[in-house]
Amino acid sequence: MNRNNCLVVFSGGQDSTTCLFWAKKNFEKVFAICFDYGQKHVAEIEQAKKIAESADVPLRIMQIPFINQLSHNSLTDFSMTMDTEKPINALPNTFVAGRNLFFISIAAVYAREIDVKNIVTGVSQTDFSGYPDCRDSFIRSLNVTLNLAMDEEFVIHTPLMWLDKAQTWQLADTLGVLEIVRNQSLTCYNGIVGDGCGHCPACKLRKAGLEKYLLELKIKN
Amino acid sequence: MNRNNCLVVFSGGQDSTTCLFWAKKNFEKVFAICFDYGQKHVAEIEQAKKIAESADVPLRIMQIPFINQLSHNSLTDFSMTMDTEKPINALPNTFVAGRNLFFISIAAVYAREIDVKNIVTGVSQTDFSGYPDCRDSFIRSLNVTLNLAMDEEFVIHTPLMWLDKAQTWQLADTLGVLEIVRNQSLTCYNGIVGDGCGHCPACKLRKAGLEKYLLELKIKN
Repeated sequence: MNRNNCLVVFSGGQDSTTCLFWAKKNFEKVFAICFDYGQKHVAEIEQAKKIAESADVPLRIMQIPFINQLSHNSLTDFSMTMDTEKPINALPNTFVAGRNLFFISIAAVYAREIDVKNIVTGVSQTDFSGYPDCRDSFIRSLNVTLNLAMDEEFVIHTPLMWLDKAQTWQLADTLGVLEIVRNQSLTCYNGIVGDGCGHCPACKLRKAGLEKYLLELKIKN
Repeated sequence: MNRNNCLVVFSGGQDSTTCLFWAKKNFEKVFAICFDYGQKHVAEIEQAKKIAESADVPLRIMQIPFINQLSHNSLTDFSMTMDTEKPINALPNTFVAGRNLFFISIAAVYAREIDVKNIVTGVSQTDFSGYPDCRDSFIRSLNVTLNLAMDEEFVIHTPLMWLDKAQTWQLADTLGVLEIVRNQSLTCYNGIVGDGCGHCPACKLRKAGLEKYLLELKIKN
């Protein structure tokens, strides 16, 4: 595998921020791409800019308003209330249909343009919240599809695929960036940096993971 | 297979117009989606509207300017001259990286929103002009990827996949729409309706196919 360079699909959230620093450790040159798709928590883009700048990673921001014109979901539709738990027999209304499909596909076309073969994304099947486009089988299938679409040999890396949130915090700690991720990243659906609002599904997951990791650390030491 | 309804990826060109009428014959209810991506031959969208309206097919037009912000190609970049033949060892500069990937992916998200499982596209491997995203293997891989992305069971139909341009004219004739396709569709990269400018790659291919089909018809009768 070519370790020269990679492109990180970056949102400024916990997962992709951890991936950004993982990428910096594993590749010589790191680029990032970020998406403005009309999300309510648009503040994450400002955080993405700050984190990328301080990590010395060139960041490309793409405007893709078509995503919220296509389908209704509570992450982009201000008239909808967000599901806080996954409904039985249905996807949560925070599911943005095709989001990872579009993010990674656009990343691949951009990667081709800047001559990069490695794409890094923070998707995880472990805490996948019922989102089908976070599953490993989807990512592998997409990898083949992208290579066929452009006659390229992209390699999609998913360092968090089989980690739970506590293990993702552990990875950030191992990379020496736990405090950066904790204080600067924005995971909260309500747009609050760091520890967030504390009650949206994203905050709950993040908080439970952090508490679990910090407890394990305490027991170990 | 559910024959109730389908969504046609429609550009107003020869191939997708033929597919629109093929779909009308094979499905009870037909919808269409069309893309404005900053193509020079934007007049095709006006033709798409006219054809869809006269065929009584509801048409959704999506603005996706991000495609020409992502990479350079001579179909959207006014400063580039179009390749008229495929260069050796390279893709023609008319290749818009990821175009069919985005068109069909967006179509799938929209199809899900309007409760449609069948997607029809006019891509063809026979006259594929060196575009990797017109190949059958790409379409099949994308079908799996889309199903995994949204936990759906889409079926992508490609009635022209193994037809050459003469056979596509024959199909239009069989469907009773040869004159409609010939006079109302717009394939020309220079934006001229019907028989077009006559010298761009798309016109050459279309014209050669028509002449071949009309000659075969003459010999047969």
